[in-house]
Amino acid sequence: MKYKTYPEFSIHYPLILTTFMKKSVRIYPDEIGVVYRNHITGEYQRFTWLEWYKRTCRLANTLSSLGVKPGKPGDPGDRIATMALNTHRHLELYYAVPCSGAVLHPINIRLAQDHIIYTINHAEDKILFFDDSFLSLVEAIYDKIKDKVEKFVYMSDKPGLPDTKIKNLYEYEALLEQESDKFQWPYLSEDNYATLCYTTGTTGLPKGAMFTHRALYLQTLHLIAHASFINDPSYVQLGENTVFMMITPLYHVHAWCAPFIYGFLSAKLVLPGTFTVDGFCDLVQTERVTTTAVVPTILALLIEYKDIDKYDFSSLKYVRVGGGALPLGLKAKVEKKIPGFSATSGYGMTETAPTTVRSFVKKYMRDWSKQKLDKVRVKTGLPIPGIEVEVIAENGEPVPHDNKTLGEIVIRGPWVIEKYYKNPEKTAEVWCDGWFHTGDLAKVDEEDFIVIADRMSDVIRSGSEMVPTVLLENLANMADFILEATVVGVPDKVWGQKPLAIIKLVPNSNKTENDFIEFLKSEGVDKGEITNWMLPKLVAIVDEVPKTSVGKYNKREIRKNLEKYLTIAKDMKQN
Amino acid sequence: MKYKTYPEFSIHYPLILTTFMKKSVRIYPDEIGVVYRNHITGEYQRFTWLEWYKRTCRLANTLSSLGVKPGKPGDPGDRIATMALNTHRHLELYYAVPCSGAVLHPINIRLAQDHIIYTINHAEDKILFFDDSFLSLVEAIYDKIKDKVEKFVYMSDKPGLPDTKIKNLYEYEALLEQESDKFQWPYLSEDNYATLCYTTGTTGLPKGAMFTHRALYLQTLHLIAHASFINDPSYVQLGENTVFMMITPLYHVHAWCAPFIYGFLSAKLVLPGTFTVDGFCDLVQTERVTTTAVVPTILALLIEYKDIDKYDFSSLKYVRVGGGALPLGLKAKVEKKIPGFSATSGYGMTETAPTTVRSFVKKYMRDWSKQKLDKVRVKTGLPIPGIEVEVIAENGEPVPHDNKTLGEIVIRGPWVIEKYYKNPEKTAEVWCDGWFHTGDLAKVDEEDFIVIADRMSDVIRSGSEMVPTVLLENLANMADFILEATVVGVPDKVWGQKPLAIIKLVPNSNKTENDFIEFLKSEGVDKGEITNWMLPKLVAIVDEVPKTSVGKYNKREIRKNLEKYLTIAKDMKQN
Repeated sequence: MKYKTYPEFSIHYPLILTTFMKKSVRIYPDEIGVVYRNHITGEYQRFTWLEWYKRTCRLANTLSSLGVKPGKPGDPGDRIATMALNTHRHLELYYAVPCSGAVLHPINIRLAQDHIIYTINHAEDKILFFDDSFLSLVEAIYDKIKDKVEKFVYMSDKPGLPDTKIKNLYEYEALLEQESDKFQWPYLSEDNYATLCYTTGTTGLPKGAMFTHRALYLQTLHLIAHASFINDPSYVQLGENTVFMMITPLYHVHAWCAPFIYGFLSAKLVLPGTFTVDGFCDLVQTERVTTTAVVPTILALLIEYKDIDKYDFSSLKYVRVGGGALPLGLKAKVEKKIPGFSATSGYGMTETAPTTVRSFVKKYMRDWSKQKLDKVRVKTGLPIPGIEVEVIAENGEPVPHDNKTLGEIVIRGPWVIEKYYKNPEKTAEVWCDGWFHTGDLAKVDEEDFIVIADRMSDVIRSGSEMVPTVLLENLANMADFILEATVVGVPDKVWGQKPLAIIKLVPNSNKTENDFIEFLKSEGVDKGEITNWMLPKLVAIVDEVPKTSVGKYNKREIRKNLEKYLTIAKDMKQN
Repeated sequence: MKYKTYPEFSIHYPLILTTFMKKSVRIYPDEIGVVYRNHITGEYQRFTWLEWYKRTCRLANTLSSLGVKPGKPGDPGDRIATMALNTHRHLELYYAVPCSGAVLHPINIRLAQDHIIYTINHAEDKILFFDDSFLSLVEAIYDKIKDKVEKFVYMSDKPGLPDTKIKNLYEYEALLEQESDKFQWPYLSEDNYATLCYTTGTTGLPKGAMFTHRALYLQTLHLIAHASFINDPSYVQLGENTVFMMITPLYHVHAWCAPFIYGFLSAKLVLPGTFTVDGFCDLVQTERVTTTAVVPTILALLIEYKDIDKYDFSSLKYVRVGGGALPLGLKAKVEKKIPGFSATSGYGMTETAPTTVRSFVKKYMRDWSKQKLDKVRVKTGLPIPGIEVEVIAENGEPVPHDNKTLGEIVIRGPWVIEKYYKNPEKTAEVWCDGWFHTGDLAKVDEEDFIVIADRMSDVIRSGSEMVPTVLLENLANMADFILEATVVGVPDKVWGQKPLAIIKLVPNSNKTENDFIEFLKSEGVDKGEITNWMLPKLVAIVDEVPKTSVGKYNKREIRKNLEKYLTIAKDMKQN
């Protein structure tokens, strides 16, 4: 008997981002789904899911009209670059490009210009979509990318094109207006490439991490499922009633997957352009934001803000902290300032799309005291169920769970990159024995929690011992009088390296370098968290600790200007 | 430069059930994970996750020693059959068999003997694991299966083998004792077949539905994720603190995926052998059960139980109802009897592993009254995000969302079977135009909710109109004096068919057939839920409404004995 089966609609039904896009418009066509606030003018734009979906369809038709070619498994479609902030347009690109089969390359606009030029040429971007605010940047690099980039699309809240030397320049809104608001989204293969993200290149040239639809779909689904596992007694289920403010830039590893997680969840997506303290406050109050995700330094900026008490922050429930450990002290300060705003930590990297580890309260801990639970909540956490994360010693075996022995974090799972884009040498450095080697150091405690200690390149080697700087930084942040603190190693004749602490005090503090060391002694050494020889030998009080494009402490920059810091540092001879 | 990538550990990391099994033992080795209560002796057995895992490893080694061969994509491994209740041993088989590469075939022991024999021979089962309570059943069919089944394994709480004619008989516990408690679980392909479930064969011979690891993994993950979407104001997040009692038999479509969902969640799994009212009460009280899943008739049995008020049911929070619509009246009765025990409905079938549609409260409904929300909660619901479910008219187009027009439910998605096992004819009947055709009728309401109306074969064709029997049944169940109610069509010279209602009253009720019709008139016709001509023309009051092996009303059985029911039915001439 003649019969036909449909594996593409059953056992091989593709795991593609299109599914996420279609969900909200189907269930909530008339609900506000996307809110954008221009961080300069303060003007709002609001879109229902249907309006946003129709714009995304128009954009997909635009891409087709501009000649964008889809790819297939193993063979990426045209690369479409963006230089854009967190706007509704950027979010439209986040779906229209991958779901029509091409590859989205969100450029980290805080990279050095040379690196931006490098990534555009390395990715062979065919079209560049850019915000009006990056016009001068695009003009500055134009001559070095114009042979590769065929077309430029200008995105602005104001109509019209600027007077510029850029050729083949189109206006985003005008392009969309010409197109139909219907689009037949293809059932792509799940192995189609969807995005291309470059590492920030703190250790050389940026490397390209390309993700398939499957990888992003599975990361999203596992992270959403993970929320169902939560035992934390302080957790309040918000479900689709979540209102998520996307602060992490969309040019930084998919804004930690937020467009996919919260898009699929039909959470209201609140886009602030770029982070400003007053914009944050205004949006929280107006949109009743419940949830956000930030790097630790953003939290520090927030609680410093003088007008913070003038706003209604009662809607805020959760903030996920990534891109650096969450110090217990910072968590406490935030929760004191904004009651109900619960901060938890996580760990990941560009190559893992990014999230792999999250703080978690185990089921038998539910009756512990808040104090004890908070210590659990800031431990970097447990692997997301569905991905494998181990900490291994040099012999390749897992380190003992003794909260002491350092090892390298290795990862494998559905959302880890297979290889760097056109970079076999770097691929060979990270993939070995079936594991992706992160270059990050951690220890594992008695309860199987992974505690990030350091980048392998940041650890301080003092004598035959290693000083894990993250441990010192976390401790330092517990002090009421500390806003920011980082620790780097400086050359030392006797020890090889000795620790230099660079700290920023809270405004109008009268504390000194000695107070800082005394704090580390009483809270660290006396309580067994660190040993005496780990104490910084030098302390520099500064107005600003240098940060990278993604808000992490920029130790590379500090090492580059080490002389400057050594000049102002106080030698803590008493240790 | 020479380098190696590991797609099997990155972009093609396999979605296999092994991941679920490993999670709980890793995080909670010493917590009680599995509890089994013998429903005859009342004796308990409790296992930590580590103890349960070690037994499962021993079982995997046993399978290997017994010569079980793993399969590969498209080529199923050896089929291993079970005739077993909900015991820890059955749960061990649920993981050890698929995770070692073979195919688990849980036999529905309530099928007719001929059908049981048919499925064993059709599946070509190599080994049959059976509970002591099914010894006589296995002996009864032995001669008709012994040429196919090579080995038999006897599972019992008591040591020793029975005196029986069955050859090649092994003792489960003795086999496990001989083996190592370590097992190197293979990284199978996600396209490896994991399970083989047969339909209950109400419309002919049972058909085999074979599921891959990928299909079961994705169903599980989407269902767990779905819990994160919930907006229902009555929802309390239990997370890993869920205590799940597995009442739905493991021989019935993976007990609705419970071993995988609650196994991955590390919920405590409570196994009652088979459902008994007193066993249920005892287990709830002892184990502090929070959650379960049942067919509607089980709920009816529960609230009828005379000693129900003697137990502490305060831990009970959720019951998912499937295998039939959840009547609003039944929901209300249960929640009145067991405060806090919230009942929600769903829809699925063997071929979809099974869940595809679940009741859901949309985000804009959160402030609705309880009365209004309860009506939403018993609507069959919305498709699980990640699977496509449509209701289509005969022209293949979706029916209007008017809560009126009936159409057929069609489905496609990652956990729908590609084909029936060795049955191309039946496959051709269900797969057409890229959609799996369920044969179930539904309508879609103004808010996109799918409301199940009937099996296509159960709908009553009266004149040129269709009487959806499920609608009548739901309505009937709202009456305080009704315990069970079903409606079938009987031949009629004028109309073709006319509706016959078969009802069971609550004990000691003095209500009559007329009261029943009056109730349908006032609650149904007057409120616009049904029309006058849909009212049953015949009503039979019975002691027991026949049910199928899975607890659904057995309309086939009723039609077979139609004369009997017509004899006692009262002709409701007044309509």
